[in-house]
Formats: sequence, structure tokens, C-alpha cells
Amino acid sequence: MAQPFVTRIRARYCETDASGIVYYNSYFVYFELGRVEMFRELGLPYDWRLPIADAACRYHASARFDDLLEIHSFVEEIRSCGFRIGHRVFRVDETEAAAEPTLLVEGHTSMVTVGDDRRPTPLPEAFRAALDAVA
Amino acid sequence: MAQPFVTRIRARYCETDASGIVYYNSYFVYFELGRVEMFRELGLPYDWRLPIADAACRYHASARFDDLLEIHSFVEEIRSCGFRIGHRVFRVDETEAAAEPTLLVEGHTSMVTVGDDRRPTPLPEAFRAALDAVA
Amino acid sequence: MAQPFVTRIRARYCETDASGIVYYNSYFVYFELGRVEMFRELGLPYDWRLPIADAACRYHASARFDDLLEIHSFVEEIRSCGFRIGHRVFRVDETEAAAEPTLLVEGHTSMVTVGDDRRPTPLPEAFRAALDAVA
Amino acid sequence: MAQPFVTRIRARYCETDASGIVYYNSYFVYFELGRVEMFRELGLPYDWRLPIADAACRYHASARFDDLLEIHSFVEEIRSCGFRIGHRVFRVDETEAAAEPTLLVEGHTSMVTVGDDRRPTPLPEAFRAALDAVA
Repeated sequence: MAQPFVTRIRARYCETDASGIVYYNSYFVYFELGRVEMFRELGLPYDWRLPIADAACRYHASARFDDLLEIHSFVEEIRSCGFRIGHRVFRVDETEAAAEPTLLVEGHTSMVTVGDDRRPTPLPEAFRAALDAVA
Repeated sequence: MAQPFVTRIRARYCETDASGIVYYNSYFVYFELGRVEMFRELGLPYDWRLPIADAACRYHASARFDDLLEIHSFVEEIRSCGFRIGHRVFRVDETEAAAEPTLLVEGHTSMVTVGDDRRPTPLPEAFRAALDAVA
Repeated sequence: MAQPFVTRIRARYCETDASGIVYYNSYFVYFELGRVEMFRELGLPYDWRLPIADAACRYHASARFDDLLEIHSFVEEIRSCGFRIGHRVFRVDETEAAAEPTLLVEGHTSMVTVGDDRRPTPLPEAFRAALDAVA
Repeated sequence: MAQPFVTRIRARYCETDASGIVYYNSYFVYFELGRVEMFRELGLPYDWRLPIADAACRYHASARFDDLLEIHSFVEEIRSCGFRIGHRVFRVDETEAAAEPTLLVEGHTSMVTVGDDRRPTPLPEAFRAALDAVA
């Protein structure tokens, strides 16, 4: 597996639900935050010409308000007209620096490169090269 | 006060927070749902040429997941380049049909009519007439 | 496939994003609305003792603000300690009553029955029977 | 006016709407982020015993996806059973370091201290002292 790009955030109050934990669709926001920072570091544009084709998440443990979270994002697959990014979200233990982060969820999002007509178009060469370098 | 336009919804799980009640900014979504249905009934367009100038909400009681809510929206003021809509959200008691709904919050949103340059422009006459008829 | 439970909603303005279409994680809210109504019809409780184990969505076409959407939910699989619900979201053509709805997304959510200690516990018999009757 | 507590964030894609700008209720999330960080710095707890009594926002300019935002939060008023926090959100110009930040919105949130019975209770003395020191 590729070296992941890592982003840290805190779980927001508005992201929790009445069961006291972070609502299940908030992780897809976290996945996007990871992608955005990954693209920033790679110097790639993040825009509507990259619609999402599929997304999935497996839930292992839950997060609570104000938990310090670490979002790991990495290139899972490069395709002719898109690519798939893998994601893992961990909770960082703030009381014991030596503790291993706890894996909360893992998932992926697949994106398709589209043209102005919103139809799939081959992944631009510069894009492919940038992803390839970190895959 | 004008006769309000009434819309009914149920509080969604994603709208609650870890304190077990509906998160405070969800009411601004409810206000918008009320405005959208009010505009639909009045035959007015609901689009980006109506940016929000200010919004406010006073919280009296809280809602929980799946509560049946009634959103009341009414014209509070018609201005030269916009208008102000008042909102009240009530919880409907589903166990006792005779019970009065409980007022949860009241607030308002002011909207400004803007042109393609996004600068304030006088409220179109047809718009004014439609609002005036229900104010 | 089982007969789906059908819920109708309109896409909310707050659910759209800057690309002009409904944001990808909003569909997981729609999936939940479908589950909630399905459970209501089946007389089953909808609470925190049913955490989500995994969720996935494939995106075929997009929805815009105020589109009329139809959420189909159906039992896909009954397991020893949980079950999997399938979901499809369609856009209803409001101008041509005869038109077929357009499939926008399809996905699923798996839920696990847990006890007060939040550990998996066998699906209660009444729960299994209710799901079985519509699977 | 008191010296504000300052928090920086980036506007998230999920916070934008179909008009291309940050949705109006997202600013109440930003206000809360400002309050949470302010309370963290003051060593005060942030929990359900501080329900929101009212909230308001005036919109001057809009934010777009990925804009760098600065949230300013400050004590506006200390009351017998609560207090009012003022908020301002600015957009930071990342291309010209010398440029003044642009004021996007200003608003406030009032919070009430409540007891276990959820009724108003006097602001604890330590709480009052901490707020007083920065008011």
C-alpha cells in the first residue's frame, strides 16, 4: 500500500447524532477532507470534473465530539477514466502519547474524470503521473 | 400577522446531536423548507438572486428524532430591495390530537433581491404583489 | 427481490453543493429516511442498538435542488446478528407523468443488533420475523 | 470590545450549496467551532448544560469552497444565568499577505446555564470569573 496522506481534524458537535457518536455519513465528509488535502499536496485541481462513482465505508469503532481524528488517504487504483482513493480514519489517544491510534472506519471513493459534457474522459496524463508517483 | 404557510416534516436522525436533541442550526434548514413551500404556493422562483441578508432564531423548547414538526412561515416586512420572512416551528403532539402544538423556536430571515452583478436591485413588481397579497 | 418500501422527498437546498447537484453523502441520509419509514411500517424500533456496520453507494445520475425523489428500501439479507437493507433512489419526472423514474443511486447499509454493552447480540426473534415477512 | 479568540478553518465542499457559496446555516457551525476553541483555551467545559437561547447572523459577503476563514469569538455579555458570545468570520486573502481580511458575517449566540432538570441555574462562579477575565 502507498504511503498515506494524513490530515488531522476534531469531530464537530454538529457531526454527532442522538446516539452520542459521530453520524455515519460524516465519515464521507472526512474522506473528502482527506482527498482535498491530498490533491493540494499533489498540486492537482479539485473540482466538479471529478464526480464520485461509488463510495463505501466499514465501521469498526465510533468517534465522539471533540475526538482528535487522523484521516489517511492513499491511491488504491488508477483507471483509464478515473481512480480510486482508499481512506482510513483513526482516533488519536490524547492522554497517552505512546498509544496506537484506534482504527474507526475504512472505506474508499472512486472518481471519474469527465469532460465539459459530463461524460467520462481519459485521465489527463499529468494527473496520472502525479497519482502514479504516490501509488 | 399574516396567515402563515404551513409545512410539516419529521426531525431527521442526522439533524440531532450528541445532546439528544435537534442541533441548533437545523432550524435554519427548516426555515428554508418553509420559505421554499411558501414560494411554491405563491408561484415565485426560489433561486440565488435572493441571498440572505440576516437570520435569527430564539429557542424555547427542543425537538427530538422523529418528532412531527410544523413550520409556519409568513411575510413580516416588504422592503424596497427585499423582504423579511418570519418563521415559527412547532412540535405536534401525536398522542393527543386535541393538544396544542408546542412552540419550539421562532425567528426570521431577510432576503435581498440582487441582479446578475449580485448587487441589490428593486424587488420586482410581480414579486411585491404576490407577497403583498399574503402579508 | 422483495417489494420495496417507498418514501418520497424533495432534495433540499442545503443538500446541494457548489457543483450544483446533491452532495454525495446526502444519499446516506436518504437511505436512512427510507429505513426509518420502513421500520415504522413494520412496527420495529429505530434506535442506537442498531449501529451501522457498513454502507455503500454507487452513483449513476445526479439530483438537483427541489427534485422529487423516491427512496426504495428493501431487505437484502437477514443475518444472525443483524441484516442488510438495500436502497435505490430515483428521480421522478414531474412534467411527464408517464415517464419512468430515473435511477440515481443504489446502495446498501448493514446493521448489527447490539446489547447494552454495545456488543453484537442475536437478532431478536420478533425482529427477524418482521423482516422475514417482507424479504 | 474584548480581544477575540481566533480559529482558522477552510470552507468544506459539503458546506457549499448550489449557488456556489457557503450555505447560510454553515456559519452557525463556524460560530460553534469558535466557541469550542475559546472554551478550550479558557479551560471551561463544553456540554449540554449550555443550551443555546438565541442565535443570529448578518451576512455581508460570501465564502467559497476551500476559502481560508478566520473565526473571531469574544464575550459580549455576562448574565445571571448565562452569557452571550459575539462572532465574526473573515476570509483571509492567501495571495496577498498584506491584504486585510474581508468581513463575511457577524453574529452572536446566547447560552443559558441549566441544571440537571434543564432549568436555568446561575452561572457558576468559576465560569463567570473565566469569562470576566476576557470580556
